[in-house]
Amino acid sequence: MTYKGKAKKFLAERGLDIWDKVVVSTETSTFEALILPGPPAEDIIYLKLPNGYNLALKIDRIKSLRKIGSISPSYTLPQMHVSIREDLPEVSIIHCGGTIASRIEYSTGAVAPAFSLEELSYAVPEIFDLIKPKLTMLFNILSEHMTPTHWTTIAKTAYKEFISGARAIIITHGTDTMHFSATALAFMLSELPGPIIFTGAMRSSDRPSSDAATNLIASAIIAGKSDIGESLIVMHAGLNDTNFFAHRGVRSLKLHSTRRDAFRSIGIPPIAEISIEKQRIDILYPHYKKISNRTPKLSAAFEPKTALVLVYPGMPSEIIETLIDKRYRGIVLAGTGLGHVPNYMFKSIQRAIEEKVIVVMTTQCLWGGVYMDVYETGRKLKKMGVIPGKNMLPHVAYIKLGWLLGLDLPDKQVKALLERNLLGEIINQESPLCF
Amino acid sequence: MTYKGKAKKFLAERGLDIWDKVVVSTETSTFEALILPGPPAEDIIYLKLPNGYNLALKIDRIKSLRKIGSISPSYTLPQMHVSIREDLPEVSIIHCGGTIASRIEYSTGAVAPAFSLEELSYAVPEIFDLIKPKLTMLFNILSEHMTPTHWTTIAKTAYKEFISGARAIIITHGTDTMHFSATALAFMLSELPGPIIFTGAMRSSDRPSSDAATNLIASAIIAGKSDIGESLIVMHAGLNDTNFFAHRGVRSLKLHSTRRDAFRSIGIPPIAEISIEKQRIDILYPHYKKISNRTPKLSAAFEPKTALVLVYPGMPSEIIETLIDKRYRGIVLAGTGLGHVPNYMFKSIQRAIEEKVIVVMTTQCLWGGVYMDVYETGRKLKKMGVIPGKNMLPHVAYIKLGWLLGLDLPDKQVKALLERNLLGEIINQESPLCF
Repeated sequence: MTYKGKAKKFLAERGLDIWDKVVVSTETSTFEALILPGPPAEDIIYLKLPNGYNLALKIDRIKSLRKIGSISPSYTLPQMHVSIREDLPEVSIIHCGGTIASRIEYSTGAVAPAFSLEELSYAVPEIFDLIKPKLTMLFNILSEHMTPTHWTTIAKTAYKEFISGARAIIITHGTDTMHFSATALAFMLSELPGPIIFTGAMRSSDRPSSDAATNLIASAIIAGKSDIGESLIVMHAGLNDTNFFAHRGVRSLKLHSTRRDAFRSIGIPPIAEISIEKQRIDILYPHYKKISNRTPKLSAAFEPKTALVLVYPGMPSEIIETLIDKRYRGIVLAGTGLGHVPNYMFKSIQRAIEEKVIVVMTTQCLWGGVYMDVYETGRKLKKMGVIPGKNMLPHVAYIKLGWLLGLDLPDKQVKALLERNLLGEIINQESPLCF
Repeated sequence: MTYKGKAKKFLAERGLDIWDKVVVSTETSTFEALILPGPPAEDIIYLKLPNGYNLALKIDRIKSLRKIGSISPSYTLPQMHVSIREDLPEVSIIHCGGTIASRIEYSTGAVAPAFSLEELSYAVPEIFDLIKPKLTMLFNILSEHMTPTHWTTIAKTAYKEFISGARAIIITHGTDTMHFSATALAFMLSELPGPIIFTGAMRSSDRPSSDAATNLIASAIIAGKSDIGESLIVMHAGLNDTNFFAHRGVRSLKLHSTRRDAFRSIGIPPIAEISIEKQRIDILYPHYKKISNRTPKLSAAFEPKTALVLVYPGMPSEIIETLIDKRYRGIVLAGTGLGHVPNYMFKSIQRAIEEKVIVVMTTQCLWGGVYMDVYETGRKLKKMGVIPGKNMLPHVAYIKLGWLLGLDLPDKQVKALLERNLLGEIINQESPLCF
């Protein structure tokens, strides 16, 4: 029994337990279901319906619950029902958590998800015709809880998988901070023998509209077939279930909190469009990094004393002062317009620079980048020593700075590398069609 | 002589002064020009070219400078060359600064811009056929330096103008924080007898590609003709010079740092499209607030102890702790996804709420809004007392919260009003075509 509080009492009073088959009646309908363990909840019972979907039902909506049988929990552990093809490219799937795991989690009823080949063979049998999957269960956390420490762990794991012979890596990950993790891996791993593909789901796999399976299939197509040697985000391209984009990790953002096509490439087109029906990859942006024949390189480091600060009218200068006092080594500002801050902030920024904090300017506009020579504000900040982040996205500049500081390079080199394009994080020219 | 430092010395050595006509030679060209006073600069001389454009030239680019005459400064003060039509609606133009002022500023050579009807009659004669302009020179600051105090001053000035009989208000403003000011005025002024229109320029009026004049003309069309009683942003709709959008102030963002169509409506279409050739207004979003017949209402208040905090992996909890220690009364979080923060932040947020700070959640995704009942993280935060900001944009929630706190309402009422749509800042349903 994984339930607690009211839900536990509700079941106990009726002599019911998990894995019992029941007939459920609510105000509006009556149906058969199986009581699943589900995540702990005070007032919800998780039910598996005969059509395979799961339902989270509030107990106060239940009019009656009648036991008609029970099953052995082992019954729900699926058997492999496709075979693994040795002739297909080996792709390592590293599971980090997020919505994409939700079906797997609920269907076995485990609070910690079972993420097995058997599960996958039921959920997404199509990928077994595209790749030879190898699974690693690394974390099971919602991506809002990811920290830079998780990034270095993911990077080290991906590196190990590449070294052990994986042709590509698929990382299943929550979408909230997927673009942060994809950026971190872009900096931490180089000379890739194949793509690192971040994918996830905007809709829980329990829902008919879930994008979990299709995103995994599109990822498997890129993993098995493409010559892209970059860190990518593969998610829905639009509202249909057939087309998907492979975004450059360091140029993408989650711009919608609910849509399946939540991710956008900023300033450049997506690198590729994938049709899962035709199993076809169309390159939209040919300037991607090709796979490398050299040995992969790992430089998994991050200076935790790095911060990203949003600039806005009325912002407190205490924010910068606190970071200086706490011995932060790097601050990225998401400035206004071409890279500006209110003039009452100049003093704190000056102090930060005097105390050897590296300060980088980006723009909260997201498109267009900073140009610090156009207006007086930019010129003054540059003169103080603020480094122009060019057209790096604010979160990308944050991760690049934390990574460079983590490598313990001399400050001068950190500053020079910040302004230099290392892997497509700074673009030569924004495509006018991509705004 | 308004020059200083090297530029002053450079002119003095050659016996030159402002208003002298000169022949200038650089590496690449030779041309006639007039030396303008211009804003103080150490190494730049401002020149008016025979075609009317101004040029800021670095002195180290000047090979030679030969005097061929001089003019009396009064010569450059223009005369009115159109007449003011009393039959047109009176529109008050309140000047706050920004790029839009640059031509006016340089051409008279004043450090403080002369923003006169005479100037306007040369720069944008078209508006004299649309409105009867009345000018107020309020500030001349770059908009990155605007603070909440400026917002209340602008609101009070606009109110006074409405009360004195203005049919509409045009506010010329820098673009960096125009969407902040437009939002502030939306909350601070109600029962509008006509629109409040923020406009500006992305390109200095000295440049042939300047959007200053066309944006003013589009603004005058809306000011003179429309029945919109909202705070708007009127700027270029696209890359051409003919079409313009009137965005709802509380739903717009500057999403590009350089393009003339930098502003976008988020989640809804722009309220109207304006063709300046056809002098036509097409309503794209009919759910706008119409002009009111009642007396305008002013509630110009803002609690300075209000902050907006960006959420990201590795963010320092010290930021929240500092704001609590400094007795901040309100914090808006720009969370990830549906309204999330890393779990290590929970403790500080809990402390903020215990110490009576009002904490509001928004999403940095910009589109889609927060839904705090879907995942455990959201539910936990909501249970702690975090107020869901629905689909309010982060900066709009910040201004709404600061404004409500400034009105000294009971906390309970502030919280209730935050979740209630007051003037279109929370939208019923996002238009799927507007992403």
